[in-house]
Amino acid sequence: MNALVLEKTHHIQIRELPVDEPMGPHDVRIRIHTVGICGSDVHYYTHGRIGPFVVNAPMILGHEASGTVTEIGSAVTNLKPGDRVCMEPGIPDPNSRATRLGIYNLDPAVRFWATPPVHGCLRPSVVHPAAFTFKVPDNVSFAEAAMVEPLAVGMHAASKAIIKPGDVAVVMGAGPIGMVTALAALAGGVSRVVITDVQQPKLDLAATLGPVTAVNVAKESAKSVVDRLTEGWGADIVFECSGNPKAAAGVFDTLRPGGCVVMVGMPIEPVAYDVVAAQIKEARVEHVFRYAHVYPRALALMGAGKIDVKPLITDTFDFSDSVKAFDFAVKMPATSVKAQIVLD
Amino acid sequence: MNALVLEKTHHIQIRELPVDEPMGPHDVRIRIHTVGICGSDVHYYTHGRIGPFVVNAPMILGHEASGTVTEIGSAVTNLKPGDRVCMEPGIPDPNSRATRLGIYNLDPAVRFWATPPVHGCLRPSVVHPAAFTFKVPDNVSFAEAAMVEPLAVGMHAASKAIIKPGDVAVVMGAGPIGMVTALAALAGGVSRVVITDVQQPKLDLAATLGPVTAVNVAKESAKSVVDRLTEGWGADIVFECSGNPKAAAGVFDTLRPGGCVVMVGMPIEPVAYDVVAAQIKEARVEHVFRYAHVYPRALALMGAGKIDVKPLITDTFDFSDSVKAFDFAVKMPATSVKAQIVLD
Amino acid sequence: MNALVLEKTHHIQIRELPVDEPMGPHDVRIRIHTVGICGSDVHYYTHGRIGPFVVNAPMILGHEASGTVTEIGSAVTNLKPGDRVCMEPGIPDPNSRATRLGIYNLDPAVRFWATPPVHGCLRPSVVHPAAFTFKVPDNVSFAEAAMVEPLAVGMHAASKAIIKPGDVAVVMGAGPIGMVTALAALAGGVSRVVITDVQQPKLDLAATLGPVTAVNVAKESAKSVVDRLTEGWGADIVFECSGNPKAAAGVFDTLRPGGCVVMVGMPIEPVAYDVVAAQIKEARVEHVFRYAHVYPRALALMGAGKIDVKPLITDTFDFSDSVKAFDFAVKMPATSVKAQIVLD
Amino acid sequence: MNALVLEKTHHIQIRELPVDEPMGPHDVRIRIHTVGICGSDVHYYTHGRIGPFVVNAPMILGHEASGTVTEIGSAVTNLKPGDRVCMEPGIPDPNSRATRLGIYNLDPAVRFWATPPVHGCLRPSVVHPAAFTFKVPDNVSFAEAAMVEPLAVGMHAASKAIIKPGDVAVVMGAGPIGMVTALAALAGGVSRVVITDVQQPKLDLAATLGPVTAVNVAKESAKSVVDRLTEGWGADIVFECSGNPKAAAGVFDTLRPGGCVVMVGMPIEPVAYDVVAAQIKEARVEHVFRYAHVYPRALALMGAGKIDVKPLITDTFDFSDSVKAFDFAVKMPATSVKAQIVLD
Repeated sequence: MNALVLEKTHHIQIRELPVDEPMGPHDVRIRIHTVGICGSDVHYYTHGRIGPFVVNAPMILGHEASGTVTEIGSAVTNLKPGDRVCMEPGIPDPNSRATRLGIYNLDPAVRFWATPPVHGCLRPSVVHPAAFTFKVPDNVSFAEAAMVEPLAVGMHAASKAIIKPGDVAVVMGAGPIGMVTALAALAGGVSRVVITDVQQPKLDLAATLGPVTAVNVAKESAKSVVDRLTEGWGADIVFECSGNPKAAAGVFDTLRPGGCVVMVGMPIEPVAYDVVAAQIKEARVEHVFRYAHVYPRALALMGAGKIDVKPLITDTFDFSDSVKAFDFAVKMPATSVKAQIVLD
Repeated sequence: MNALVLEKTHHIQIRELPVDEPMGPHDVRIRIHTVGICGSDVHYYTHGRIGPFVVNAPMILGHEASGTVTEIGSAVTNLKPGDRVCMEPGIPDPNSRATRLGIYNLDPAVRFWATPPVHGCLRPSVVHPAAFTFKVPDNVSFAEAAMVEPLAVGMHAASKAIIKPGDVAVVMGAGPIGMVTALAALAGGVSRVVITDVQQPKLDLAATLGPVTAVNVAKESAKSVVDRLTEGWGADIVFECSGNPKAAAGVFDTLRPGGCVVMVGMPIEPVAYDVVAAQIKEARVEHVFRYAHVYPRALALMGAGKIDVKPLITDTFDFSDSVKAFDFAVKMPATSVKAQIVLD
Repeated sequence: MNALVLEKTHHIQIRELPVDEPMGPHDVRIRIHTVGICGSDVHYYTHGRIGPFVVNAPMILGHEASGTVTEIGSAVTNLKPGDRVCMEPGIPDPNSRATRLGIYNLDPAVRFWATPPVHGCLRPSVVHPAAFTFKVPDNVSFAEAAMVEPLAVGMHAASKAIIKPGDVAVVMGAGPIGMVTALAALAGGVSRVVITDVQQPKLDLAATLGPVTAVNVAKESAKSVVDRLTEGWGADIVFECSGNPKAAAGVFDTLRPGGCVVMVGMPIEPVAYDVVAAQIKEARVEHVFRYAHVYPRALALMGAGKIDVKPLITDTFDFSDSVKAFDFAVKMPATSVKAQIVLD
Repeated sequence: MNALVLEKTHHIQIRELPVDEPMGPHDVRIRIHTVGICGSDVHYYTHGRIGPFVVNAPMILGHEASGTVTEIGSAVTNLKPGDRVCMEPGIPDPNSRATRLGIYNLDPAVRFWATPPVHGCLRPSVVHPAAFTFKVPDNVSFAEAAMVEPLAVGMHAASKAIIKPGDVAVVMGAGPIGMVTALAALAGGVSRVVITDVQQPKLDLAATLGPVTAVNVAKESAKSVVDRLTEGWGADIVFECSGNPKAAAGVFDTLRPGGCVVMVGMPIEPVAYDVVAAQIKEARVEHVFRYAHVYPRALALMGAGKIDVKPLITDTFDFSDSVKAFDFAVKMPATSVKAQIVLD
């Protein structure tokens, strides 16, 4: 099949690459419709590795996908050919201790699309477990369905926060993950998001997503804004989505006593952690790694009109223009959030 | 001052009644604007008692109030004259064990407006602790602010449920408490509410409140609707708001394994409790009594446009027509939800 | 192999019965050493059914077992031949939604030993998934290891309660399940258990298990004892282990405001549920069904000397005396708690 | 009254110092019996300040106290003269937002014994709120009762961890706080504590406190010990009690996926925080500041024999030898844990 193959660093092309995918009784086959480009795809393209994961052989890119079921295994009951679906890209070992506990995203044996040596989904079709394939509501498009993958990160972060209805949240960083976290937090009960960044175009877009106060921290202190909104009490939740070690060191500044911090961004350098600052507020700090159990919840909220990801889908390319799409994504302008490739 | 006084069962009138209210350093004085009529006010009017609380002396009615601060105590810093506010009607003993634990609503020594022998707020002004008086956002009217009291019950129920974003909830009963619980649950992260009742006009109104599926259980089984919406899995949360012992016996029917039931309605008769039905789903059952800590959250969600109580305010009366208003409330038509009295 | 077979109601015998058990890569083979007799085994013997589960064909009894690994599958890494082990008797479907969420005990497709049509373990050997087979510490005997199964119910109840160190707990019912729940609660952080029953010999035994106050409710009110111990505040946790509908109706009597009730016993009749009594205390009511994820925890506490089940093992029989053992269990004296059969 | 007064840095003496303490209706007067010396007392003695708290005027030291009630206020019902008691040293503002939420320890207005400018309790008598004065069980001595204050830190840490019965915990640091945290964790349901330090005498003492594995990290890796005990899975809980920034940087090394870290020690320097290491395990990190609501729980566990602090009380001085006691505490040998002063 014709797939978008990362041959080696800085070299991708569309070409024929056979993928051996036997279909078991609990699997379905899916014709891929839309695939979003993620920062990790771009990073493999430009650097050939992420931490311990090194691209040593040609690998198909892509893991944010939607499509249509074309065939189902003999034991599959919840899906049928023709169903419009999106897919979790990580498949855990069903026999691992983490999976049995329900925290399957923490299973070290997870096989994840476009993480070497596992092929991604920028190809005409995939075979996937039915348990990780989810039906898309009629009023949600393929483009939106392909956004469920990044949205799932925000949904998982919002779930870990244990939002109380009416909470005030700070979202640090207005990149794609900050945006989806803001959307998930608002859908999840937050009454107001204070989102921070230094790129004004991203803040301008974020400000349109709902009851959002966008703060350009190059010009204004987030703490002063939060103090004004909360009578000096602080935010109930702080989502760190910038991945910037300097920013991340300030997660406790805007937090209220007894509040919760969720670490979503992944800083490469260690963060300077002021333990006493966290202690005098008895902060609860949660960490998220990908997501678990949130796809159906994300789809339900999108179907109900409570999450609208359309403003985040800023750029669309044909599959034949995939190389162009990746080169665009490498130099993404501040006004863009998510680029997608349409195959079907 | 001229107040609406319940003299004895079936006898209310507006008349002069002096109330001795010394103002302490932590108190504020409030000119009352709007007061909603609650089922408990009506019950005292028609029966003269609720359980152990008996009206033995003339008592001013009303506990759902909004108004304007006119004077503040010397230690008050969070409010000033002119502030538009609404008030929690129950004041706990600050030295009780329950209050110290943060569960002040469970303090048996709570003094609650219009619960004998404590006077209510259907009068020109009240003195109230600043800590239980909350500033109202500019875009929220006095009428809406007076709805915070019943809404707080729904908010507290939604908080106890510990909603995960995207949960599906059943609300049993489409009376005022079912309505506010549906609003709070939706604002708190629920993707869809299935509300049940046998009165079609109430269901028709409920269906307009958001992603709500209204089920007339005289005609259709709630379980079949929930099964269709959840592929047979069940609802994540069931809010019992009917207070009907027969309905309440069925709370586990529509619940998913590992789901949560919140008992909001207060059935007078014992409910037939099928323990094994709850066990095979390992249901968590939460019980709510009034509310604690939710007023600012309710106001924030209303200010953010995430909760709109206006459709529930169906009938408004002048203070001079208070007797008429109560007689209306005694025979409330199915098309009405909440009647309010305007004083200011 | 020679097994203890329930042929039909009131008829058990030891006889040859071939069991077809193919061994997969994730399985182990275990030589059975000790098997405890549970109330459910006895009930199948005397009644031939429990609810919807009917004995329609000869079935091997027993599900509380310990033994020695004799063979391991090719993918098994955590066990080796010679390991002393005990086994969870219920095996869920790894592809079910409940299992994926980590609540595998709620999977309706669970296959459970000695629940028709699944054979039990009163036979020389069994094949079992390694994931549900647990190594026993050196200082824990086979007899104690066979007690892990009933203890697991108490452990699961104690886990669901979310004990805070120093909590006071009431355990209603001093049968085997009440006893193991008391042990698990004490090991799990409870400072004092108040256990109730009407059979004095059981209370006398319970009183020896640690800081336990045994109350014969035929002579004394549990509420007055709890009030005395807690200055009238109430118990933090109430474990209902009697399964008696009348007793279970009183679960809220001894509870403190904000406390937790765990329903462990399984009353056949509906319980009269006073919802308002639960509401004024905002009780959290948890329900347990068997157990999940607690075997290794139970074994760790036994190995650490924090749980001692030996006082509960009151009667031991050779396998050749199995019929006698069951007839004894049918008419268990009040001084006995657990009878076991030794095979190896 | 004659009190132990810190005149200025390095200068303490016993001398007459009048303390003006009006007694209100909710207060009790207590004759002090025993007072423990805490690291913070010593630090004020040697440095004259802790962070923003500066000793600008003579201040009585001491905050770990037990004694006997001699007089009660008119509204006090839970205590009477002659009661043996111990006292929480921090009194919050009952009108603060934090107090109302039940997190009174986070109220910035807390007045805490021997934190400037508030006098401590190394004096013959104190007046204290009854709500923060707790009756001591008959089988608990005054010396043990004075240990409740440091033990409360460990109790609060153990409560925040939300221990599941049978958890394995690491305690980093075998100083007084590490010791009491180990005791609280074991009483709270942990099956085994792995305690780490580099001082062998402290480890030797810790190893006697129960199922404790003491690891000298100068000689052996904590991770290898935990991996051996948990089959490579990791500890359920890690309590950081060393306050050492380098040690604290390693809190995630021994943790299992989905585990909890509790930060108890207070490092002065920032800690190098590897966010990704925490994310791949989705660590929950809790922070504790002093304690709230745990005194009665600590006393109950001591009364039940589940916590024995006697091995930690290594040195006792008469009040007349207070200066000598402090000079001893400044140069505490590795074999000592807690020094106490007896007044009564």
